[in-house]
Amino acid sequence: MAADMTRVVIIGAGFGGLTVAQSLAGSPVNVTVVDRHNFHYFQPLLYQVATAALSPADIAWPIRGILRRQTNTTVLMADMTGVDVDARLVHAGSVTIPYDYLVLATGATHSYFGHPEWASVAPGLKQIEDATAIRRRILMAFEKAELIEDAADQQRLLTFVVVGGGPTGVEMAGAIAEVAHHALPAEFRRIDPHAARVILIEAGPRLLPAFPADLSDYARQALERMGVEVRTSARVVECDERGVDLEDTRITAGTIVWAAGVVASPAAEWIGAERDRAGRVKVGPDLTVPGRPEIFAIGDTAAVVDADGKVVPGIAPAAKQMGRYVAEVIAARSSHRTPPGAFRYRHQGDLATIGRKAAVVRLDHVHLKGFPGWLFWGFAHIYFLIGLRNRAVVAFSWFWNYLTYQRGARLIVDSPEAQEAAQAEKVRPQASSVEVSREPRRGQTAPSGADWH
Amino acid sequence: MAADMTRVVIIGAGFGGLTVAQSLAGSPVNVTVVDRHNFHYFQPLLYQVATAALSPADIAWPIRGILRRQTNTTVLMADMTGVDVDARLVHAGSVTIPYDYLVLATGATHSYFGHPEWASVAPGLKQIEDATAIRRRILMAFEKAELIEDAADQQRLLTFVVVGGGPTGVEMAGAIAEVAHHALPAEFRRIDPHAARVILIEAGPRLLPAFPADLSDYARQALERMGVEVRTSARVVECDERGVDLEDTRITAGTIVWAAGVVASPAAEWIGAERDRAGRVKVGPDLTVPGRPEIFAIGDTAAVVDADGKVVPGIAPAAKQMGRYVAEVIAARSSHRTPPGAFRYRHQGDLATIGRKAAVVRLDHVHLKGFPGWLFWGFAHIYFLIGLRNRAVVAFSWFWNYLTYQRGARLIVDSPEAQEAAQAEKVRPQASSVEVSREPRRGQTAPSGADWH
Repeated sequence: MAADMTRVVIIGAGFGGLTVAQSLAGSPVNVTVVDRHNFHYFQPLLYQVATAALSPADIAWPIRGILRRQTNTTVLMADMTGVDVDARLVHAGSVTIPYDYLVLATGATHSYFGHPEWASVAPGLKQIEDATAIRRRILMAFEKAELIEDAADQQRLLTFVVVGGGPTGVEMAGAIAEVAHHALPAEFRRIDPHAARVILIEAGPRLLPAFPADLSDYARQALERMGVEVRTSARVVECDERGVDLEDTRITAGTIVWAAGVVASPAAEWIGAERDRAGRVKVGPDLTVPGRPEIFAIGDTAAVVDADGKVVPGIAPAAKQMGRYVAEVIAARSSHRTPPGAFRYRHQGDLATIGRKAAVVRLDHVHLKGFPGWLFWGFAHIYFLIGLRNRAVVAFSWFWNYLTYQRGARLIVDSPEAQEAAQAEKVRPQASSVEVSREPRRGQTAPSGADWH
Repeated sequence: MAADMTRVVIIGAGFGGLTVAQSLAGSPVNVTVVDRHNFHYFQPLLYQVATAALSPADIAWPIRGILRRQTNTTVLMADMTGVDVDARLVHAGSVTIPYDYLVLATGATHSYFGHPEWASVAPGLKQIEDATAIRRRILMAFEKAELIEDAADQQRLLTFVVVGGGPTGVEMAGAIAEVAHHALPAEFRRIDPHAARVILIEAGPRLLPAFPADLSDYARQALERMGVEVRTSARVVECDERGVDLEDTRITAGTIVWAAGVVASPAAEWIGAERDRAGRVKVGPDLTVPGRPEIFAIGDTAAVVDADGKVVPGIAPAAKQMGRYVAEVIAARSSHRTPPGAFRYRHQGDLATIGRKAAVVRLDHVHLKGFPGWLFWGFAHIYFLIGLRNRAVVAFSWFWNYLTYQRGARLIVDSPEAQEAAQAEKVRPQASSVEVSREPRRGQTAPSGADWH
């Protein structure tokens, strides 16, 4: 390969960045993909990892594995440290990578609306690590409640608040209700998981604001049938370890999941570009940064209004369309052909699942809900999963869960704090023998013979 | 259930403890199982998690799920803090549990032969968390090597030392060699994973000392054909972050895996019982602690010589046999029947796998090796996996890996240290822009056009 070949550097291997790399497979350019993880993951199913239905590896693939046959492509696992836009250099950890074209596709993270201190008590769901952390919190809440005696503490531990009524919030609330009301009840002796409360809080007047009103109404009814308490037009004003404050009331809760807002990754800062209120890079009609025709921003990192004046939404299909478009522009410009016209977004539809046999689907002329919606949702997601292996495993896991109501990935793996605690414990073994005796609780309404005496 | 029903408390839900609980399903006793994890796991396949062939959830099951139909059984997730043998109370975290019979089945952990400081540089493989930590180290070694320039550092990162030539060490060495020489080579552009060295160190004169000499010889030859360097009669005298010292030489290495020794959990300390050199509780012919007929110790926690004078080995089938025996003794004694005679161990055979199409099996009158051994090993392990779901997933993953040489569970999930570092990074964003420039490396023998210019 010639040393003067066009160098394309892609930062981020989510839906957008990966699509750029894949679309440049046959082009005579030299591609480098930089990501801080070694895997690409299918974010729309992250909530299934967070609720123990799937394992992380079921929805994630090594980036190297996906791109292994593209011999024009190098993958580097490194953290971004900055961009020198004048020298056209990317700094990532200890390496410096020169580029002719730079594609910023670093996605978004949670926004706590000016309250970053809420992050530790109300984790969001963007990364694989977020999903396993939330899974640990949900499962530990039941374990802790089974160990204690105080009824108020038990009820607090068994109360789950989900903040945000978009697709992720709806999916999380429905899935937590399924875990509590179907998967776990037979397994506990001292608490009744049926008593768990799941509360979904949305600041706007209805759930799923991107969907038509009839599907929003259906989603609310379906969630309420599953035992989820839905509170719309309710704004969270404070979060702490023991619950959330709404404007007019306090909800005591052991677990809070944040699905309310996103803010773009700091790509705009790296290149000193103008950004919108959500931190996204404002790009022109060809998705380049104004004044920097060699720098593209796509996906959740970019604020895009397409050639028809449509605001492009922050969803996976939009990121993929932008990725294909940018690859076309780069391929054309690097071989001195005319690049395609301004980017045009084709909206294919909206999907959100609520639970077992319930989902909402809005296509161009079709609204689906209930079981047909759920079937459509399931097939669409399996279809889009990359790689035959994962498709089969996910399909098998879902079929199994559907038949049995079970959840197969219910591991509580030690949190960093727990590991530190264990280390501390090793340093001073036998340091504390707990003296607090626990009164046996007689006459309790556990399923059977589960009291201590 | 009567309040005066016999109370059996089982500490540890490994092969031994879980078997006791399951064998008491139909008995009129009240069973409490205490474990510090919420899952039971299939330790013989832990090395497959450590080498990215399987996900943790493929070889682990919630203890509550396994025992959900046993209404006489309560499961508690809690850390042991001590036992009051005179008052017959178990202290576990904030709870105190009275018992009539106590079964100690808390297993074993790694032994570093008086060098606990080696633990941080040479992790062992006993827990699920150990397996994911080792997986992270192995995969990160390749990622780091791809990022750097210095050939000596690359070779150090691509050198893997496994200490201990028993079944776990043999399995780990073979699996690392497969990852390096089959799964990864097509995916890297700047390093050649074929150049990775895997070195297996055994202090004794031959590998697999529990097996007959012909199978030991076969294992060594099979590993050497796979590119593993086997060093027998070699003793490790020092471990640090950059390698190991043998008595006569130094091996520079980026990753060290410890599979050399085990020491029992501190059960003997909890009850003030006599222990052997490996820390195991010395038990009598009925597996009770001398002078404490109500306390049993089984599995890797116990030093057992059976009725025929055989020393019982620390393997899963032995722990299960002890579990069934103890359940019989408890069921008989609690209903005033004559308990069975002294424990008798039936050795069913030894199994160890080396890699694709290579394993060694020693049954009573049959020695298997090579492909027949590997088939037998695979079927035996799938047969013993609990739960239809996992059996199917594991079988599918293996078949897939066999067809494709791929490894499906290659996720590098953030280590606790990495998460802390990320937190620190958030506190001081943009604090350091790395200035070290990286010279492009021309004329390298990477598969194709993968250099930077």
